[in-house]
Parts: sequence; structure tokens; C-alpha cells
Amino acid sequence: MELDLTHALAVLERTPASFRALLGGLPEVWTTPNEGPETFSAFDNLGHLIHCERTDWLPRARIILAQGTDRRFAPVDRFAHYQESAGKSVADLLDEFAQLRAENLATLRDWRLTDREFALVGEHPALGSVTLGQLLAAWVAHDLGHLAQTARVLAKQYREAVGPWRAYLPVLDRP
Amino acid sequence: MELDLTHALAVLERTPASFRALLGGLPEVWTTPNEGPETFSAFDNLGHLIHCERTDWLPRARIILAQGTDRRFAPVDRFAHYQESAGKSVADLLDEFAQLRAENLATLRDWRLTDREFALVGEHPALGSVTLGQLLAAWVAHDLGHLAQTARVLAKQYREAVGPWRAYLPVLDRP
Repeated sequence: MELDLTHALAVLERTPASFRALLGGLPEVWTTPNEGPETFSAFDNLGHLIHCERTDWLPRARIILAQGTDRRFAPVDRFAHYQESAGKSVADLLDEFAQLRAENLATLRDWRLTDREFALVGEHPALGSVTLGQLLAAWVAHDLGHLAQTARVLAKQYREAVGPWRAYLPVLDRP
Repeated sequence: MELDLTHALAVLERTPASFRALLGGLPEVWTTPNEGPETFSAFDNLGHLIHCERTDWLPRARIILAQGTDRRFAPVDRFAHYQESAGKSVADLLDEFAQLRAENLATLRDWRLTDREFALVGEHPALGSVTLGQLLAAWVAHDLGHLAQTARVLAKQYREAVGPWRAYLPVLDRP
């Protein structure tokens, strides 16, 4: 379906609570393991979402809306959160994510964007020309992708424990 | 990691709230579409979890614990929910799932299972001999698999809307 701001906001505003319901108070044996080298644990997924909240979505939207001479986005560091999250707990990250997301969605609502703005273009460092509408849709899909990834990394902790059921649970062997 | 009842319960008791945080009040344009023929919408995922809550996990655990002469499980109908959920809303299904899960976990806790029971065996109609411990681990992984599947089917609604970002969002093209 096409981007609709009300529909996009309905997902974006639910993401912090979805992560809190899944991860809040969950034992660390679940939230610490990852899926192998350069992959994300549940903890890492939260840290990455926080990093994107600060450096990706709204900063890039501002570049597009400004329509200046240089509309090129800064690249996002996919591993910056390893350092930024050091020493924090899952509870810390859940709070931080919820607060940043609430602030960012308040800003987004204040902009009262219309189809005219959704068609404005910026320059992604690798993907080339992208519209503001595509950026907002990617924000939504990125949230949901990391929720799926978080559920998957948790599930994989029982890959052996399920025994023969592994054949019926594709989530356990999905990269 | 190995099955640990406390850890398993920590996930199982969070699943209804995770689905509620994600899907409660979400517009139907998100919850109705599926991923193609014989695939599940967000609504279908909830209906399937409810069907399993009634017919799969505890009924099978009871067969194992009884250690009778016939320890063969009835097959689960993966599409029974199409009929059972007809006419219901997402809100109805969220309530029904939360109530059934709470009842089932209360029963599971009352059983005060130990490693001795986890090693008892039943007969899966397709997978053969399985232990109670494997059944409980599969319950956990199945929950998380359907949470991942639900996040994925939602994300796919923006597969076109994200434009060039599709290359960076593998969740949009995962079967």
C-alpha cells in the first residue's frame, strides 16, 4: 500500500511499547546472545534503534525538507551502538528509545506534512535519490524488521532444545 | 541453551502483551493483508495462536504426562482458525489469546514440573518421539516465530513504498 502518514504513525508510535512488552524484565540469558559475528542480540537491536532515532530518520527528513544545495545524507554507522550502549541495561535502553521516539513523533506531527513534501527528494549516500515519503515508509519497515529480528534471535536460543520440532520452525534457521 | 522452565515462562507470559502492544488499535489496513495464498495476516497469526492454545500445547503435554498406552498426539489443523476467527475483531482475538494463555500458564505452573517430567516422551504424528521438554521449548519458539511473522507481514505492506530502501530491508522479501 502507499504511504499514509496516519497509518505510518500508528506503527511508529507502537514500536517502543512492543519492545517493552517483549523485553522488559526478560532474563539476560535471552537478551544478551546474538546470532553470530556482526549480528545483533535483542539488546543490540534496541541500541541500534536508538542510534537511528538520533542520527537517521529525522536528521535526514530535515535535510530533505530544507531543500538546500547539498541534500546528501550522512551514512549511518550500523555498529555505533556497541559503544553507545556499553554499561546500559535493557531497561535503560527501553526508556531511552521510548523517550526519543515520542519526541521525534511530536516533531513529525508538528510538521503537518502533505503529499507535496512526501515527494521532495534527498540523496542517500549509497541508494541515490530518495523521497521523504520513501524515508518515512522505510522508518516503519525498519522498526518492524528489527522487531522480527529480535523475536528471531530470542527464538534461536531454543534451536537445540526444541529437538525434532526444528523442522517445523523455520525462524530457528533463518539467517 | 537448554530448556529452563522459569526462562520459558518468562517468554510465554509476555507473548499476549507483545501482540497487544503491536496490534491493539492498529488500523485494519495493517492487520488484514497476508503474504499470499495460504499465508497468515496479522489477524490470522493471532487466530492460529489461539487455536494452538486450545488444541496443541497443553493437550499434548497432558498426553505425555499421563504416560498411557497411546501417547500419540492429534495433528494440529494449521488453518482451523480461518473458521474459528470469522466475525471476530483483532481486539476480540487479543483478549481471547491473553485469557487462554493466562489459564494455560497457571496450569503449567501448578504442575511443578521437574527434569524427570521434561524427559518423558510422547509421539508426534509426523516427527515421532518427542519429550515434554522439547514440547515446551517448541511452544516458546513457536510464539516468537509468529511474532516475527506478524512483524514481517506488516512490514511487507510498505514493500513498494520504501522505494530504493527495499535493498536494505531483507524483511520485505523474506518468504
